Amino acid sequence: MKVALFGAGRIGKVHAASIKTDPRSELAAVTDVMPEAAQALAREHGIAVRSPDEILADPAIDAILIASSTNTHADLIEAGVKAGKAIFCEKPIDLDLARALEIGRLAKTHDKPMMMGFNRRFDPNFAAVKAALEAGEVGKGEMLAVTSYDPAPPPVSYIKVSGGLYRDMMIHDFDMCAFLFGMPKTVTAHGSCLVDPEIGAAGDIDTAVVVLTYADGRIATIRNSRRAPYGYDQRVELLGSEGTLEARNEIENTVVKSTAAGTVSAKPVFFFLERYMRAYAIEWSAFVDACVEGKPVPATVQDGVNALALAEAANLSFREGRPVEVTPAMTGA
Amino acid sequence: MKVALFGAGRIGKVHAASIKTDPRSELAAVTDVMPEAAQALAREHGIAVRSPDEILADPAIDAILIASSTNTHADLIEAGVKAGKAIFCEKPIDLDLARALEIGRLAKTHDKPMMMGFNRRFDPNFAAVKAALEAGEVGKGEMLAVTSYDPAPPPVSYIKVSGGLYRDMMIHDFDMCAFLFGMPKTVTAHGSCLVDPEIGAAGDIDTAVVVLTYADGRIATIRNSRRAPYGYDQRVELLGSEGTLEARNEIENTVVKSTAAGTVSAKPVFFFLERYMRAYAIEWSAFVDACVEGKPVPATVQDGVNALALAEAANLSFREGRPVEVTPAMTGA
Amino acid sequence: MKVALFGAGRIGKVHAASIKTDPRSELAAVTDVMPEAAQALAREHGIAVRSPDEILADPAIDAILIASSTNTHADLIEAGVKAGKAIFCEKPIDLDLARALEIGRLAKTHDKPMMMGFNRRFDPNFAAVKAALEAGEVGKGEMLAVTSYDPAPPPVSYIKVSGGLYRDMMIHDFDMCAFLFGMPKTVTAHGSCLVDPEIGAAGDIDTAVVVLTYADGRIATIRNSRRAPYGYDQRVELLGSEGTLEARNEIENTVVKSTAAGTVSAKPVFFFLERYMRAYAIEWSAFVDACVEGKPVPATVQDGVNALALAEAANLSFREGRPVEVTPAMTGA
Amino acid sequence: MKVALFGAGRIGKVHAASIKTDPRSELAAVTDVMPEAAQALAREHGIAVRSPDEILADPAIDAILIASSTNTHADLIEAGVKAGKAIFCEKPIDLDLARALEIGRLAKTHDKPMMMGFNRRFDPNFAAVKAALEAGEVGKGEMLAVTSYDPAPPPVSYIKVSGGLYRDMMIHDFDMCAFLFGMPKTVTAHGSCLVDPEIGAAGDIDTAVVVLTYADGRIATIRNSRRAPYGYDQRVELLGSEGTLEARNEIENTVVKSTAAGTVSAKPVFFFLERYMRAYAIEWSAFVDACVEGKPVPATVQDGVNALALAEAANLSFREGRPVEVTPAMTGA
Repeated sequence: MKVALFGAGRIGKVHAASIKTDPRSELAAVTDVMPEAAQALAREHGIAVRSPDEILADPAIDAILIASSTNTHADLIEAGVKAGKAIFCEKPIDLDLARALEIGRLAKTHDKPMMMGFNRRFDPNFAAVKAALEAGEVGKGEMLAVTSYDPAPPPVSYIKVSGGLYRDMMIHDFDMCAFLFGMPKTVTAHGSCLVDPEIGAAGDIDTAVVVLTYADGRIATIRNSRRAPYGYDQRVELLGSEGTLEARNEIENTVVKSTAAGTVSAKPVFFFLERYMRAYAIEWSAFVDACVEGKPVPATVQDGVNALALAEAANLSFREGRPVEVTPAMTGA
Repeated sequence: MKVALFGAGRIGKVHAASIKTDPRSELAAVTDVMPEAAQALAREHGIAVRSPDEILADPAIDAILIASSTNTHADLIEAGVKAGKAIFCEKPIDLDLARALEIGRLAKTHDKPMMMGFNRRFDPNFAAVKAALEAGEVGKGEMLAVTSYDPAPPPVSYIKVSGGLYRDMMIHDFDMCAFLFGMPKTVTAHGSCLVDPEIGAAGDIDTAVVVLTYADGRIATIRNSRRAPYGYDQRVELLGSEGTLEARNEIENTVVKSTAAGTVSAKPVFFFLERYMRAYAIEWSAFVDACVEGKPVPATVQDGVNALALAEAANLSFREGRPVEVTPAMTGA
Repeated sequence: MKVALFGAGRIGKVHAASIKTDPRSELAAVTDVMPEAAQALAREHGIAVRSPDEILADPAIDAILIASSTNTHADLIEAGVKAGKAIFCEKPIDLDLARALEIGRLAKTHDKPMMMGFNRRFDPNFAAVKAALEAGEVGKGEMLAVTSYDPAPPPVSYIKVSGGLYRDMMIHDFDMCAFLFGMPKTVTAHGSCLVDPEIGAAGDIDTAVVVLTYADGRIATIRNSRRAPYGYDQRVELLGSEGTLEARNEIENTVVKSTAAGTVSAKPVFFFLERYMRAYAIEWSAFVDACVEGKPVPATVQDGVNALALAEAANLSFREGRPVEVTPAMTGA
Repeated sequence: MKVALFGAGRIGKVHAASIKTDPRSELAAVTDVMPEAAQALAREHGIAVRSPDEILADPAIDAILIASSTNTHADLIEAGVKAGKAIFCEKPIDLDLARALEIGRLAKTHDKPMMMGFNRRFDPNFAAVKAALEAGEVGKGEMLAVTSYDPAPPPVSYIKVSGGLYRDMMIHDFDMCAFLFGMPKTVTAHGSCLVDPEIGAAGDIDTAVVVLTYADGRIATIRNSRRAPYGYDQRVELLGSEGTLEARNEIENTVVKSTAAGTVSAKPVFFFLERYMRAYAIEWSAFVDACVEGKPVPATVQDGVNALALAEAANLSFREGRPVEVTPAMTGA
């Protein structure tokens, strides 16, 4: 299976490595608006830099992997569908829900696998929570708590084009709730600017709590902060009728030091590249499974629409200071 | 310091033991509406059963400890104030906020120590969180998460007279938030009946999430369930600008067993008597400190009013499906 | 059951509290070579100071608890046997194995319960290891590792009269091995002076490793140090044919702090009074069980002889630099 | 840097992957006595199968990686030295100490990097213990305890040609002690056959404890078992004058499940390929560092001789039931 990569930045490089790790897929071409970035990646992998049009027109290319900037995702998906390619696209589909809904409708018409890069679904820890829940190991799910803190806020220049915390950062956590508990009935959002006043000046928040309630009474909470001085804090806790499941952080090493100052163990691994490196490789193999073996796609375009719809609902809830109901119109479902 | 105990039930017995542990206090008398209960406790401790009136009239009694049923608390506090006694009262002051506010006003006129039995403030784990926060060990507090699950729901007969989950169970957690973060600006409550349909039929909930927001942007979340099959789950987690503090559960023993089935460690200690046994003794000594050494009372009647006001706000928020603002009128502050 | 206490020092006070905690036993008298110590303890508990002879002659005294200095133990046991008392004696019986063997023979002739204060057998963590092993939860035992470090060395004046590390400190660990694995076939001792050169100058060691081998091939290791800067380190680890059991340290509180400096949790509880406080109470109740209910004594005089025999074998092994066989002559068994 | 691989078995495949991961090294050829194994690996990596002679004669080959069976190691090292290649060799040099000493002398004459595959030195957890010890974080080292259990014994056919537990299995742990504490003065070995009577029938043991004593009084213990039903158990614990360092096991995932049956977390990762996968890659990069950047070799041929000398001393100690002194003649140092 020959794959062309759109985007040779940080996440593009991660995906390039994943493509090479699965023996069933081959990195065949790369493109990027920054020619030097494309050249560097092409050189490292011994492949060609090609233009988007060449790639899309080449029948030897089976799949495209979209890891370019967010504002190009929807257009590239459309082009990929037209060209008949299998498509793997980094989240989000688009910052605009209406545009995402269009892509969601388009996806239903495409007969090749299309997958969204919700990498956390493939983290072995979260996947083990999902598996234990589905196996009934803690009975029926009742409450879910997702904790998700970045080690440090991004530059304010990034914040300004990010679409805001709910769409940029919490979208992963909305998907985690959807992954484990499905789609909620209401969204209630709280947020504030505690980490960096510049973020507040840019009209965004850096600290947030969202509560999701479900039609059957289940309740999920999400906590986000743009700053955790000890590193990337990525945990899930789930109360079921017969017990609790917790996915704790992965830590840098297993050494424990006990001195008069107390007992010290290592910090969580630094950030998403460290924490989710395995997840990226597993995610890619799941896409290859769908392309090569016809297995179901484990993170669909609809999942991407759903997460964005929850982010939109959170934005509305936060602005209006009230719970917001999630309607079918929001998700196109 | 001579102490008379009102109430010889389960919690009365715990307090009787605490009174004897502190060498500065002496259990001098007991009273209970159930004569046999009073007799049994009196026999065990070699003291006299006396009537409430005798106790209140006896100038040799320095302090009364109110551990009788909730509906007697406010009246006994009034009688104790009138009799000039130092007063230790189990929470809550009353299920009715207006009545609690009356007692709050009365407390301001009393010149003897009055203390509410918010035992969790004296749990060494939660107290260590408070101390670390105040020492600036994690910088300025930003988010707080209180997890508080009972091992199993009480009988529905109890639920019916309990005042509801927010006033009966979450009141401890409201106080924990007030203890660590002070009084919030808004309360948003979510709840459902997932554990026992009989609880729902009795008009109550058994699963709840409440979010508190603070004027300065801090956010606290409380999660309650009437059932945790692995035992009493009592944790606090606090994100500050420089780190996180977690108070984890105390467990039955430190043995870890590794077999082909995985690595198994002990469950949390069973329920509040086990978990908070040390807290009850420390709490009592803090009251004796206030009586004997003039130290400040670490859990005041106003703290009792405040926790009840938050429970009332949660009830209103839950009924009306909207955030409720906490006003000075609610707390009499 | 009326109990007289011999010895009002640190450990005597602990036992006095235990006697009062069990409702079936009553502290009736105390004696000590230091009259002030005896007076202080008597005053606190509202009892009488009496002479050893008075105590032994008083038929109302059912049991004596020997918590006086080691060199008095054997004589007091003999006196107690002659007086027909039940006897609880702190370890060791005597620093001299021949004298201990005499007491061991005497014990067989006494028809009242006699128990040695091997408090660690009653620690809930070690007791849980024993219970799990006996229940077959990890199959048949194969290797045992006992880690036992004091927080800081005692004064050299104490070292000089202690009988040496193997008899004074490791005797507890020899008993732990006997408790879990029974009596070994050989003892091989290694030791050095790394903590305090004064200890070496006094002819003792402060760091030691002993290996015990069993007739059926099992192997136990004991590690001792007179100094662990983070507190009392008391652990047991057992490999069985189906898994491993570890009893870890008890810690001061459950708070975990994560900052840029790492993740810090509390140190082990400071020393034996903190760690084994519960064990002392459980131990005492086991003795009362034996006296009142005729249950078997869980730590016999023979257990005391056995532990001392292993210490003697370790001394010999260390001096001669070779494995030493444990013979029936050493234990009188 | 072009590398030829000798041996296309399990460990050869691991090294082939490492060679490709470091961008400075290139896998150029493979050879194996089993032609199919060599062909399969060659096909997967797009390289040529060549004969040993061709490889050694080819001046374009900079380094050879010896991952063939133990009995070929010494001869291949000699051939590699003669051919002027940099040499990476899996442990052990040889099962015969005299032969290893010859190779040790030869190594001193070779001017290209030569490195032994003591992969555990590169495990991030053990490396962190080493770094913390060298940084003085726990003061001066006093006691070391290495725990090293395999998940299950190998086939008895392997046992018979393995050289015995001390040389085949504990050699890694001898090297770990040398890595952290240097070379000891005495070796005292204990062992038995508890896991599989067939192993005993083959003249070997499957359970062992070895104590190493150092000239300055430090003491190390090693515990080995051929079976740990919960997986590969690989831990190190070090007591220093100011604290303790523990390298704990890596576990399969971070999920913790609490139910009425207790709190269950994941098992250690299964075996050496899982546990040491990262270590193999880091180890290889260290060899490339030595070849390309002239950095010191972190695991020398002398380290290989030293570990084998300790295994020999353990064999002698076990046979004769006495401590054995480690002499300069044993290590050629």
